Amino acid sequence: MPKISQKGQLMPSSPIRKLVPYAEQAYKDGKTVYHLNIGQPDIKTPEVALDAVRVHSLDILAYTRSEGSEDYRKKIAQYYAKNNINVSHTDIIVTTGGSEALLFAFGSVMDSDDEIIIPEPFYANYNGFSIASDIKVVPVISKIEDNFALPPIEEFEKLITDKTKAILICNPGNPTGYLYSREEIKKLAVIVKKHDLFLIADEVYREFVYEGNEFYSIMQEEGLEDYAIMIDSVSKRYSMCGARIGYLVSKNKEVIQTALKFAQARLSPPTLAQIASEAALNTPQSYFDDVIVEYEKRRNTLIRELKTIDGLKVAEPKGAFYCIVELPIKNADHFAQWLLESYDYNKETVMVAPAAGFYSTPNVGLNQIRIAYVLNEQSLIRAVHILKEALKVYPNN
Amino acid sequence: MPKISQKGQLMPSSPIRKLVPYAEQAYKDGKTVYHLNIGQPDIKTPEVALDAVRVHSLDILAYTRSEGSEDYRKKIAQYYAKNNINVSHTDIIVTTGGSEALLFAFGSVMDSDDEIIIPEPFYANYNGFSIASDIKVVPVISKIEDNFALPPIEEFEKLITDKTKAILICNPGNPTGYLYSREEIKKLAVIVKKHDLFLIADEVYREFVYEGNEFYSIMQEEGLEDYAIMIDSVSKRYSMCGARIGYLVSKNKEVIQTALKFAQARLSPPTLAQIASEAALNTPQSYFDDVIVEYEKRRNTLIRELKTIDGLKVAEPKGAFYCIVELPIKNADHFAQWLLESYDYNKETVMVAPAAGFYSTPNVGLNQIRIAYVLNEQSLIRAVHILKEALKVYPNN
Repeated sequence: MPKISQKGQLMPSSPIRKLVPYAEQAYKDGKTVYHLNIGQPDIKTPEVALDAVRVHSLDILAYTRSEGSEDYRKKIAQYYAKNNINVSHTDIIVTTGGSEALLFAFGSVMDSDDEIIIPEPFYANYNGFSIASDIKVVPVISKIEDNFALPPIEEFEKLITDKTKAILICNPGNPTGYLYSREEIKKLAVIVKKHDLFLIADEVYREFVYEGNEFYSIMQEEGLEDYAIMIDSVSKRYSMCGARIGYLVSKNKEVIQTALKFAQARLSPPTLAQIASEAALNTPQSYFDDVIVEYEKRRNTLIRELKTIDGLKVAEPKGAFYCIVELPIKNADHFAQWLLESYDYNKETVMVAPAAGFYSTPNVGLNQIRIAYVLNEQSLIRAVHILKEALKVYPNN
Repeated sequence: MPKISQKGQLMPSSPIRKLVPYAEQAYKDGKTVYHLNIGQPDIKTPEVALDAVRVHSLDILAYTRSEGSEDYRKKIAQYYAKNNINVSHTDIIVTTGGSEALLFAFGSVMDSDDEIIIPEPFYANYNGFSIASDIKVVPVISKIEDNFALPPIEEFEKLITDKTKAILICNPGNPTGYLYSREEIKKLAVIVKKHDLFLIADEVYREFVYEGNEFYSIMQEEGLEDYAIMIDSVSKRYSMCGARIGYLVSKNKEVIQTALKFAQARLSPPTLAQIASEAALNTPQSYFDDVIVEYEKRRNTLIRELKTIDGLKVAEPKGAFYCIVELPIKNADHFAQWLLESYDYNKETVMVAPAAGFYSTPNVGLNQIRIAYVLNEQSLIRAVHILKEALKVYPNN
């Protein structure tokens, strides 16, 4: 029998998906499960996007251009202009989700065994994309005590080798909720220019910024044109994760020409999803205002409730809709499974994402979980209460 | 300024896309261009698929399961059963086009510098996916004189090294139109079992088989369960290339579990496209009957007309909707550009795909073109007439 690849063996399973069978058993046992584990928002997709698909007039569902239509990309450029990011449609490639934009970026700037420095904890699938691309993640550890702020730039400097080709950040961060300041972006700009590295920024949560904080894109930083590669996605912005539309954006022409060759090999991004996503650009500002107000309320409620739990540490999120929570336990993997398998509070329990999967350093974050605040306030209050009661009786802390 | 990757430099540009600016100029010059170059059928998408999207009742365009919903995969398994292929829904992963199924297959069974043997000429993007996956294509040359039949199995045997992990075929073939016989598949089965290799078959043109010939899938071959990986796609079957839905199918559980990890990293295939593709499974048989009759007529017309051209050789296609044509010229790249740039016959010209891009061996197939017969019969007759007239005056043959 032929063998699968080493790469295939190394590919991580999702830290959350391992729990799915336990969640399914919990449903069968009649338990209500509050899902604090997922990044699938409960917010409705803008009607304008859903309607555009309902009234489509296609008689052949044909390929689009590999980089997305010129019209669509021009509208995307207008969206960026409104967000103080000046790019042309020729700086944009439409991709099949932010996932594909990341894969194209990795393939365009890195070869086998090249290294990418990523502040950790980071979005778990960066590990998978790195293994698929045969490159090495070099983590620089950010700390819950600092709310996961950018680690001192000297820590990056220490990790740079001949193999280092890029630094990757997620801003605002999944899973940390941290929002990088203008000063932090400027520090990263200095170091990538000094060492001739690319700075890749996953900015898919751009709109989700709270307390009136400023979002500062790597694309706004002058002098970074040749170094900056931005990853974007419609998934969270318009609550249309299932569209699978993202963008790779760069003013470095060589990067765009190279990424375009990867895009041409896979022919085109999905056509129906592009129709929905192009229409989504007409979403009224009131939609976002309402969504941000809602998430800020949820965030405040979640943090307030969490702080009533003894021995719990939480990094206060300034953006996105996640936070990392340190629990007074030893092993969050076991705890998460136990919550589903062996615990209930009046037939209710919670599902959380163990944070170890968001680290590439072994044995770090073992007592941490990620909470996604994509439930309404009442459910969040209830879910945190269950968590609190569960911790009182959990036998392995 | 940071450098792009070697891989990015090696990624091929599409052999057709290089011609696009010349085609655009030809339009501006008022020429009519007959497109013999593209694989985008003019056949209408089944109404049942387009309608399913029009009546969708989603209010959140959410992720689906990474492998596609259980319901959808069960229906796909029923479709295969009707085609004499017995697989369970658990043997199927829904992918973003056949392209992604190929990438998942490559990643699941091959590491950097591993080798895959492919009869050439082959679908040009196999080159791109191989470079993206950092693996090496080892071509085994099939010949126009043999209609591009499977090369003698000893030719494969000679090329097998410690690095060889798989053999890839496209059946029926793009760009050759060749349909592998049951005997040829059995020969491949023997060799992959002998050398512990995977046999990957791209069977996206399964339905497009002419003259009542039998299509024999690698999934029908007994004893090949652990070795066979089938790539499939809805693109051509239902004339819905823009959906970007494909399948990876294997009875090798380890392959499926591994490919699933790649699928989980990218979260989910596009949701709207899955709605359309699931509905497409209800397309009435009469649709396919009509389409096959139409393509067979086109094929017969095209071949008949091509044979009236002196010095031209054509490999008679038994399936798909392509054929390779050898012209009495030296360089098809130049000829294809000249047709658009410098030639017209009563303000009309043709666009063809130079075949060199379908070979990985340098300097092979330079005098060949690929013709896609996705135009109606009258247009095909006209296009071949223009080609004939053009060859009479082409200065570089």
